[in-house]
Amino acid sequence: MIIVLKPNAEKEKILLLKNALEENYKVTVNTWVGVESTVLGLIGDTTHIDEDWVYAQDVVENVKRVQEPYKKANRKFHPDNTVIELPTGQKIGDGSLCIMAGPCSVETEEQINYVAQRVKEAGATFLRGGAFKPRTSPYSFQGLKSEGLDLLKGARKVTGLPIVTEIMRVSHIDMFESVDIIQVGARNMQNFELLKELGKIDKPILLKRGLSSTIEEWLMSAEYIMAGGNNKVILCERGIRTYETATRNTLDLSAVPVIKKKSHLPVIVDPSHATGKSSLVEQMSLAAVAAGADGLMIEVHNDPKHALSDGAQSLTPEQFDIVAKKVFALKKAYDEIMRNEE
Amino acid sequence: MIIVLKPNAEKEKILLLKNALEENYKVTVNTWVGVESTVLGLIGDTTHIDEDWVYAQDVVENVKRVQEPYKKANRKFHPDNTVIELPTGQKIGDGSLCIMAGPCSVETEEQINYVAQRVKEAGATFLRGGAFKPRTSPYSFQGLKSEGLDLLKGARKVTGLPIVTEIMRVSHIDMFESVDIIQVGARNMQNFELLKELGKIDKPILLKRGLSSTIEEWLMSAEYIMAGGNNKVILCERGIRTYETATRNTLDLSAVPVIKKKSHLPVIVDPSHATGKSSLVEQMSLAAVAAGADGLMIEVHNDPKHALSDGAQSLTPEQFDIVAKKVFALKKAYDEIMRNEE
Amino acid sequence: MIIVLKPNAEKEKILLLKNALEENYKVTVNTWVGVESTVLGLIGDTTHIDEDWVYAQDVVENVKRVQEPYKKANRKFHPDNTVIELPTGQKIGDGSLCIMAGPCSVETEEQINYVAQRVKEAGATFLRGGAFKPRTSPYSFQGLKSEGLDLLKGARKVTGLPIVTEIMRVSHIDMFESVDIIQVGARNMQNFELLKELGKIDKPILLKRGLSSTIEEWLMSAEYIMAGGNNKVILCERGIRTYETATRNTLDLSAVPVIKKKSHLPVIVDPSHATGKSSLVEQMSLAAVAAGADGLMIEVHNDPKHALSDGAQSLTPEQFDIVAKKVFALKKAYDEIMRNEE
Amino acid sequence: MIIVLKPNAEKEKILLLKNALEENYKVTVNTWVGVESTVLGLIGDTTHIDEDWVYAQDVVENVKRVQEPYKKANRKFHPDNTVIELPTGQKIGDGSLCIMAGPCSVETEEQINYVAQRVKEAGATFLRGGAFKPRTSPYSFQGLKSEGLDLLKGARKVTGLPIVTEIMRVSHIDMFESVDIIQVGARNMQNFELLKELGKIDKPILLKRGLSSTIEEWLMSAEYIMAGGNNKVILCERGIRTYETATRNTLDLSAVPVIKKKSHLPVIVDPSHATGKSSLVEQMSLAAVAAGADGLMIEVHNDPKHALSDGAQSLTPEQFDIVAKKVFALKKAYDEIMRNEE
Repeated sequence: MIIVLKPNAEKEKILLLKNALEENYKVTVNTWVGVESTVLGLIGDTTHIDEDWVYAQDVVENVKRVQEPYKKANRKFHPDNTVIELPTGQKIGDGSLCIMAGPCSVETEEQINYVAQRVKEAGATFLRGGAFKPRTSPYSFQGLKSEGLDLLKGARKVTGLPIVTEIMRVSHIDMFESVDIIQVGARNMQNFELLKELGKIDKPILLKRGLSSTIEEWLMSAEYIMAGGNNKVILCERGIRTYETATRNTLDLSAVPVIKKKSHLPVIVDPSHATGKSSLVEQMSLAAVAAGADGLMIEVHNDPKHALSDGAQSLTPEQFDIVAKKVFALKKAYDEIMRNEE
Repeated sequence: MIIVLKPNAEKEKILLLKNALEENYKVTVNTWVGVESTVLGLIGDTTHIDEDWVYAQDVVENVKRVQEPYKKANRKFHPDNTVIELPTGQKIGDGSLCIMAGPCSVETEEQINYVAQRVKEAGATFLRGGAFKPRTSPYSFQGLKSEGLDLLKGARKVTGLPIVTEIMRVSHIDMFESVDIIQVGARNMQNFELLKELGKIDKPILLKRGLSSTIEEWLMSAEYIMAGGNNKVILCERGIRTYETATRNTLDLSAVPVIKKKSHLPVIVDPSHATGKSSLVEQMSLAAVAAGADGLMIEVHNDPKHALSDGAQSLTPEQFDIVAKKVFALKKAYDEIMRNEE
Repeated sequence: MIIVLKPNAEKEKILLLKNALEENYKVTVNTWVGVESTVLGLIGDTTHIDEDWVYAQDVVENVKRVQEPYKKANRKFHPDNTVIELPTGQKIGDGSLCIMAGPCSVETEEQINYVAQRVKEAGATFLRGGAFKPRTSPYSFQGLKSEGLDLLKGARKVTGLPIVTEIMRVSHIDMFESVDIIQVGARNMQNFELLKELGKIDKPILLKRGLSSTIEEWLMSAEYIMAGGNNKVILCERGIRTYETATRNTLDLSAVPVIKKKSHLPVIVDPSHATGKSSLVEQMSLAAVAAGADGLMIEVHNDPKHALSDGAQSLTPEQFDIVAKKVFALKKAYDEIMRNEE
Repeated sequence: MIIVLKPNAEKEKILLLKNALEENYKVTVNTWVGVESTVLGLIGDTTHIDEDWVYAQDVVENVKRVQEPYKKANRKFHPDNTVIELPTGQKIGDGSLCIMAGPCSVETEEQINYVAQRVKEAGATFLRGGAFKPRTSPYSFQGLKSEGLDLLKGARKVTGLPIVTEIMRVSHIDMFESVDIIQVGARNMQNFELLKELGKIDKPILLKRGLSSTIEEWLMSAEYIMAGGNNKVILCERGIRTYETATRNTLDLSAVPVIKKKSHLPVIVDPSHATGKSSLVEQMSLAAVAAGADGLMIEVHNDPKHALSDGAQSLTPEQFDIVAKKVFALKKAYDEIMRNEE
């Protein structure tokens, strides 16, 4: 951490600050005195230093963090890719492409079983489906709740596909015991109380990026889970909020290579929520693969026009067949191209 | 709701959609057939209609909501201003200016009592202070928690100021029983499970705007609380996330008159979090008053440079004295100017 | 265009509006009277109708455009892809992948000839290079200007690569006579006077997307050029401004398939300016190809660390060799995958 | 400027960089060697140093500017407020409140003379009106052009109000000879060629903030004009582009006190373009005054519903009378409150 002091900072105050930093945070402070201003350089673990506290000091003009504020999620301290393996054998982050597909909301047994069967046949490796739904309006369908979870488990039994579904409340953690991957939605990315509790369990967490979260904040939320002891975090880019209205959100695919450099965690992409339009899903799925994503999360509904939520962005099983075929073909080509390099 | 159909929509499918709308949502559908396209006009309560569902229909090109999706928060159905009165007599939304002041975090008994005393003397009508703190980093100070709540209650006893403090978890609602106003922070504005539970209690809720929430989404979150039966919602503008970095967030003061037109709920402004800089608080407090805000939330710390969080944006009690004096003087002038008009 | 009138709009005023629309804009107006409100549906060419004018009418509550405001750039009226062919034979938009590569700024004859030679060998089909440079600071290097143009022409002579370079001023159009493709930079995307003049010449124009321009505004700027008679417009996505700071801008790759649906114009992608980091260029180039882009614009500098501008995002010729190889390999696989579908 | 080097930067390369900086930019470089990394501190005028160049150096990890990149616009080197005085006596930036009012577009002699007369009576000190109009669509009304300029001059003759109008093209500068204040619109804020030419004349320039420009970029554009020798720059905040759609743009009033700290230039506010809604103009005008603005720019039209552009945001002369009265009353109160402090 580099601290730039104000031009006329008094020597005594500088000394007080230096001592406070060394005592409170156990770092070594080097002082560089320039003609116009003095700069402090901190050596040691500055992760615990509160930038706000530093900024509030009289003599401080500016603070620059050199070290990233996340540790467990940081590739620097964990150079190898994290590979998340499920008890049933599926792996995420090992170089393969996982595809999580299914309806936005679980609606009926028939629906979820049918969709699960179809996406499995097309090559999906996980079944996604919402039982508890975060909806902007209190008057919109809020999901089948625990009944939805049961239907998901039923579809898992039928198809063998592990299930991914969203949690919205700390008190539901027990109910999600037999869910294979627990999803934290974009709106809860900074629901720190939920993150803390998910850090205490031993189950993969799919952490969606918040609508207006920076990549650093996103990694800090992963850090919340990991700080509690659960290292099984999968990141999911799902579009950020910008001024553009042609798509529901703006899919930030550059986040994929950025994350790959900064962190060892796997990162997947959700083109359905990002674009909000089924007609854009194929092209953005292909782009996500070429950007280096570890997987895709795609909405598939047997009958999008009767879907109880997010129908406009769902693919039919027939459309998903085609997308999956292309995606796997591109992944194969991509892997060959990347392998040739080595 | 106006539904624009695709140019070549088949008559049978249009009829099916019309019937589905009338049966599922109990609305009357008028059909207007143009040369190029057909438009459906829905009459009745369209609040419950899922736009996603409509968009997913084959024949639909576009949907335009004429009615706002919120009802209880809507000024149309509740023309008079909501005035929130505390058992201790304080009112919010009655034309007076409430000032909620205090430290970002409660730290010690001495600190909170001293600040409470000072802000009371300067004219603050509420004591604010964080006991549970949402922090981006798991390694930052997370608040004194229940101990902090006790210290706030102690300061209330000493000064008589009602207390405002943030809740972060459903299971804490009981613990917040004797808090006067419960705050929902920006990051939890769409923590719908929390909103639902707060809708079941009878206590004013201060709902901060999410970092990237539209005004409509914000009102929909108020609607969540009100749909549960709790109409005591106070809105708080605290800056939105934009590309500008000169301030921590961009304070959207136009939200104040926009809210005043759309809703009957009181709206206050937090210039401290919005700007992130104590040197901008005075000017933006004055601007908020002139924009028509019902109140201000201002961070005051006895010793900002030793504050455990958000020190850079806190005023000292001395600075707050001056700001409060100016703010009240401007409010007086503003009221006279507005009264003369009538 | 659908115009929703206010609930209590008077019949006389509605009639006046209807007549005004029919007379001023030669459209047919259908009236649909509902219980709560009246809706006007306009049939005919509404491209010339000023939305502002409509909104300003007393009785108008809301306006919804059904027709896009652009005509010449609209795929609806020009279903086939526009293919731009240069006198020297190169084509853009014909399904092939064009690569425009070269330094941000032209610096010396040696430099530009060397880079041109290297990028040609690697497969680039155009040489890009800045002679006039838009710089945020008046104190930064502003380009070699006309001397830079001469050096570009020299490099074209040596390599046979057509040249692409940015214009910043109407009075320079004559000077750009022998440039092969004239680039309009992001900051000038809405310099309408420049666009109008470029509409009068017969030369391909590369129109970069403005930092905060919607896709519709971008197409409207293309429309400005085309309205003047010049249909040779190439669109270039180069990142939009968002709150994220990990990349210089946020590359909006979903703009590629969106444009492909809305317009017949070719669209290319500039990952160098979008990300601002050379380490992200390879991955985002691959993603752009998979998103369906017609080409790439990539910065290559013989010696990025001595580049007079934008060095941080430039590739060395050696790095570009590798990127180009991978990009062409992926494009080949992509084409096969897409062809199989048919 | 502080340059943080990479952890393993080689000594020789560091020396090379140090020498290059000292030779090319005539600054003194201090080296501070830490355990993990080395930091260079530059002393002297770093305004001319290209950050891109620094970032492109192999050994550089990060760069932090301590000094602002603008000099002439910087309050540090010019502590007193700039007061712009017109030959006709009007002053901007002297503590008074200037009001520039008039129609978006000049339409007829009758219209402009009538509006000019009315706004003068209400207290406006300048007449604004567009002769050349930047419009998103090539099919929208583009202004009366030189005829509009003549009408403005006529209205000036009748009322004595100095005129403010927008320029869109370098070649028009001569035509704007007798305009009192030349406006540069938001879309041209980074039309550097235009800024450079406006730097060569001796006339006040009203520089509107770009839709997605940071405050620093805005001041750099002012610097372009000032670097040419013209110090008469007036800044105008007119809303920035965000995700919010309830208002046309988001008025960033905190920019006013931020500018006041960073620069000595006067800053005014345009609530009409910022909000896009006439119903919000009064409240945001009052807020702008309380935020410390030196003036307001307000759209007034004799007949907003027949205005050829931007009718929805224009006030009628009657509405403007009321707004102006309140605004002057609040300004008076504001000045007294601020004076008492001293």
